Amino acid sequence: MSSPDPLSPGDYRALARFRYALRVFLRFSEDAARSAGVTPAHHQLMLAVKGWDGAGPPTISDLADRLQLKLHSTVELVRRAADAGLVTTAADEADARRQLVALTPHGESILASLSLQHREELRRFRTEMVDVLDELA
Amino acid sequence: MSSPDPLSPGDYRALARFRYALRVFLRFSEDAARSAGVTPAHHQLMLAVKGWDGAGPPTISDLADRLQLKLHSTVELVRRAADAGLVTTAADEADARRQLVALTPHGESILASLSLQHREELRRFRTEMVDVLDELA
Repeated sequence: MSSPDPLSPGDYRALARFRYALRVFLRFSEDAARSAGVTPAHHQLMLAVKGWDGAGPPTISDLADRLQLKLHSTVELVRRAADAGLVTTAADEADARRQLVALTPHGESILASLSLQHREELRRFRTEMVDVLDELA
Repeated sequence: MSSPDPLSPGDYRALARFRYALRVFLRFSEDAARSAGVTPAHHQLMLAVKGWDGAGPPTISDLADRLQLKLHSTVELVRRAADAGLVTTAADEADARRQLVALTPHGESILASLSLQHREELRRFRTEMVDVLDELA
């Protein structure tokens, strides 16, 4: 096995720029969520529900995987988001031990507004991101 | 001003995939830092120092901006990283109120190893990232 090509000053600058761009994006995202009246965690939960690409609605353990959270943390997050009127849960008819999660109309509406802002921000972000990733390629 | 094009199911899936990819990357990064014996915050501080693209070494307030931290949090972070032998600080000869931050040889060595791993991970990550950003474009 050959050793990897050594790191150049440009590699370090690109890695640092990448992390800075991520931080600016995450800051934007957290501020946008709070301005829409939800916590960043509730926003991410709603996005994971709406963006779920499996057959049928996601279960709580599907969401735990997507959010990279422990199951008990996800259960608690879903409970708080349900209390806030953003999501509903229902037992899976095929397996009553599984809880399926869906958005309420209120959750749909907030997520749509946040998603438009995020799509816009990511369109701006794309150029910077691709530039930096190309420098490291 | 025209209203933005409406969000498609594919837009929601792309936004969700983007965040999932970020979480997996950030998890990788935190685990890599801890395996190298440093905290994720110390790793990010070292990267911001080494990747600094200004003339001369960065000041603590330069680093606060890059790390998106408050100044007093950055002062504290630099102090702990200095205690851990990763960075050194020195008064700027041009303005003694400014503290310049540099890496120690120990910090350089840990950062080099972490940066090789991150460059590799970001090369893998690039395809997924660019795909998703293209879907939103």
